[in-house]
Amino acid sequence: MATKPFAIIAGVGPGTGASIARRFAKSYPIVVLARNPANYQGVVDEINSTGGQATGISTDLSDSAGVKSAFEQIKSQFSGATLAAAVFNSGGGFVRKPFLELTEEEFGGGFESQGKGAFNFAQHVLPLFNPTATEHPPTLIFTGATASLKGSANFASFAAGKFALRALAQSLAREFGPKGIHVAHVIIDGVIDIPRTKGWVFEKEDAKLDPGAIAESYWHLHTQPRTTFGFELDLRPYVERW
Amino acid sequence: MATKPFAIIAGVGPGTGASIARRFAKSYPIVVLARNPANYQGVVDEINSTGGQATGISTDLSDSAGVKSAFEQIKSQFSGATLAAAVFNSGGGFVRKPFLELTEEEFGGGFESQGKGAFNFAQHVLPLFNPTATEHPPTLIFTGATASLKGSANFASFAAGKFALRALAQSLAREFGPKGIHVAHVIIDGVIDIPRTKGWVFEKEDAKLDPGAIAESYWHLHTQPRTTFGFELDLRPYVERW
Amino acid sequence: MATKPFAIIAGVGPGTGASIARRFAKSYPIVVLARNPANYQGVVDEINSTGGQATGISTDLSDSAGVKSAFEQIKSQFSGATLAAAVFNSGGGFVRKPFLELTEEEFGGGFESQGKGAFNFAQHVLPLFNPTATEHPPTLIFTGATASLKGSANFASFAAGKFALRALAQSLAREFGPKGIHVAHVIIDGVIDIPRTKGWVFEKEDAKLDPGAIAESYWHLHTQPRTTFGFELDLRPYVERW
Amino acid sequence: MATKPFAIIAGVGPGTGASIARRFAKSYPIVVLARNPANYQGVVDEINSTGGQATGISTDLSDSAGVKSAFEQIKSQFSGATLAAAVFNSGGGFVRKPFLELTEEEFGGGFESQGKGAFNFAQHVLPLFNPTATEHPPTLIFTGATASLKGSANFASFAAGKFALRALAQSLAREFGPKGIHVAHVIIDGVIDIPRTKGWVFEKEDAKLDPGAIAESYWHLHTQPRTTFGFELDLRPYVERW
Repeated sequence: MATKPFAIIAGVGPGTGASIARRFAKSYPIVVLARNPANYQGVVDEINSTGGQATGISTDLSDSAGVKSAFEQIKSQFSGATLAAAVFNSGGGFVRKPFLELTEEEFGGGFESQGKGAFNFAQHVLPLFNPTATEHPPTLIFTGATASLKGSANFASFAAGKFALRALAQSLAREFGPKGIHVAHVIIDGVIDIPRTKGWVFEKEDAKLDPGAIAESYWHLHTQPRTTFGFELDLRPYVERW
Repeated sequence: MATKPFAIIAGVGPGTGASIARRFAKSYPIVVLARNPANYQGVVDEINSTGGQATGISTDLSDSAGVKSAFEQIKSQFSGATLAAAVFNSGGGFVRKPFLELTEEEFGGGFESQGKGAFNFAQHVLPLFNPTATEHPPTLIFTGATASLKGSANFASFAAGKFALRALAQSLAREFGPKGIHVAHVIIDGVIDIPRTKGWVFEKEDAKLDPGAIAESYWHLHTQPRTTFGFELDLRPYVERW
Repeated sequence: MATKPFAIIAGVGPGTGASIARRFAKSYPIVVLARNPANYQGVVDEINSTGGQATGISTDLSDSAGVKSAFEQIKSQFSGATLAAAVFNSGGGFVRKPFLELTEEEFGGGFESQGKGAFNFAQHVLPLFNPTATEHPPTLIFTGATASLKGSANFASFAAGKFALRALAQSLAREFGPKGIHVAHVIIDGVIDIPRTKGWVFEKEDAKLDPGAIAESYWHLHTQPRTTFGFELDLRPYVERW
Repeated sequence: MATKPFAIIAGVGPGTGASIARRFAKSYPIVVLARNPANYQGVVDEINSTGGQATGISTDLSDSAGVKSAFEQIKSQFSGATLAAAVFNSGGGFVRKPFLELTEEEFGGGFESQGKGAFNFAQHVLPLFNPTATEHPPTLIFTGATASLKGSANFASFAAGKFALRALAQSLAREFGPKGIHVAHVIIDGVIDIPRTKGWVFEKEDAKLDPGAIAESYWHLHTQPRTTFGFELDLRPYVERW
């Protein structure tokens, strides 16, 4: 029977999610969730082969039945253990288009991914927290974006999803904070340095967010005591215009 | 063939929607949309019997097929006329509950009503606007709420919907403003004085928002020239704490 | 003895202030305040020669002794009358510079003008209001700017002043709103079409805010009943990027 | 000749400032600034007697001549060394009062302390930074408060000062960020657990912010690489209503 507190990272590809997984895996056995196993297999193998403990589960967070089944697997594997931290880092699900070219499904995709996905994730992780059982207060962190604060032209789908996610994060922080659960929202404002953005060239060096540094901030938020919970932190490269 | 510019008010019950309908009916033939004809029949009859011109159409804005059919009826009735203004004032669709008691459908209800409903409405009204054909720039106004800016405990569904609506409004303002279309978002922060809140008693008099005064502010926004578009206005009773 | 309600407009030059003065002069005798009589003499003469009633008083709002003396003159002239509305529209007092080139006095200039000037103005107008004596609730409106919400590079002085002004406006709205006094803050986000910006050419026409349209929005805010006070409205040209 | 990078903490009393001083003293020789030596002497002695290195200098940050003289002393003592981090944590300088009872001086006190004080501090520390000479990017952190975002009734002086401070922080972040200097703003939203608030009793335990935990967040911000600068973080106790 596992008893060590563990962590769950949802939305793990080769970028931020993998770095957050690596960071939390230094202290906890971790579960990573992603639609496509190809997205998490690399980091799962890496963690397991370097002294950590990681499990990958393939699931689509916007599909409530699938999420339920994924968490039954988690509860069975970690029966007797407490959840120490959970990170919702899912992306995707939206398109960038002139508004009149958007289909209803495309517009709704932002909310499916960010609103409904985060809802399903939160519904399952919150009951696994136990504020008196872990070293640090149990922590639920959501990943936001520039579009969490600004609805730009052609970004209706993404902004609607990210605004909704921020609303959810605020609502959960206000409901579960007083129960000793730390809910936080991190706004990533800029391009992240991941394989997909490798070729994006900027005038100045170091112009992309470092996933490892993002992960350190998530870890810092996790370690805050309940006297001093951070709710929102915005991260951007030094040269970013904002 | 109708040629006078007309207006469409979506979400018309006995409160704000009816007052907005009355106000815009002073200058335009109007169409009012609501799910339940009982909600708009009174104001439609009142306007038609006092020298105005009003048509009620029953439709559920979150149902794209229904909205399409409603707009075919509108386009047929107002063939040759230009749309001067459109107001999205739909409410409802959400429940107030502790988060862990919310079903996925209940959580999604806020977005269905406020996100998808507003999307369907905007998709149909924007192509009917013609910035060079009307006295005032064509205007699309969305009704927000306290929950547009703050995700309170137990309000995850409503706040997610209202945050998403605000994201959509910002995105449309930034895309369609430069085309001469005025998109605005009004934050109603307080209890509105409508039949449903008749019995709600406050310590001080005049503590509820007056739907007629709200309607005057919508009309004011509509009359602004394109040099001077207002995007966001917050309205609250003088005694409201904020 | 004058008994008709009157209005005071502070910060009157050939642009927004003059337009606000003209608009409020349609309903009230007005007093205009500016440091330099050359700034207000034109609009004062124009109003007086077209059926209105206007008085200009030269004063520097950041100088408390001068403001006191100006208001003694006002109280003597309008003895027995009630103040219906007051607008703080002062500008200037700041420089745009790299931070390390700013002197302490230059940095403080933004606050002198916007913070201290607004303080002195509010201290004198608030006691002249009587919520039961005028048709519309007595109204105090402050003019904000893009820099009310964003501290841009090289704008430390101006942004510090405008942020402080917005803080003051919020604090007064929360203290005096419940007493029936309407305090509002208007954010002017863009270039205003005034003599000084005549030569500024934009790619599209109508790209500058129209002072007359700004004035209409101030008047609209003034006419709101206490059930439905607007606190903040942002105004910008349709082509403005934001 | 000192060559080790050092840090300066301004506004050091027995609470947050002392904790920040202790935290940064683990890595750097530090200078602490406060008006009254009694406020910093304890923490200076404590640091010096436990293996650290601390110097206290008495100065009033709103007095530019005094600040200049303090920095001459610092530059002489740390000649040859680079400044690694600077924290502006000054408080005080304001009164809480109904607006009409505020004197001009009392109203201006918030800006004197928070606006002008921060200006003087920033003017002197920014030229001492060298982005290529220290392990972590040179960091300037400002301490904000609830009143940085909200102007409450009776808080005109404090809110005007804290809004102005936030404007300054934003302006500096946008000007100096691209030069590799990390400027951040931390919003302390709640009562801090310091000697002065010892007797304040709350219904729940741990209801006050822990100065040590605040200091850890400041240190975390300092260690962020330039790819991933955090600008704003809000900290509050788990039971705080917001």
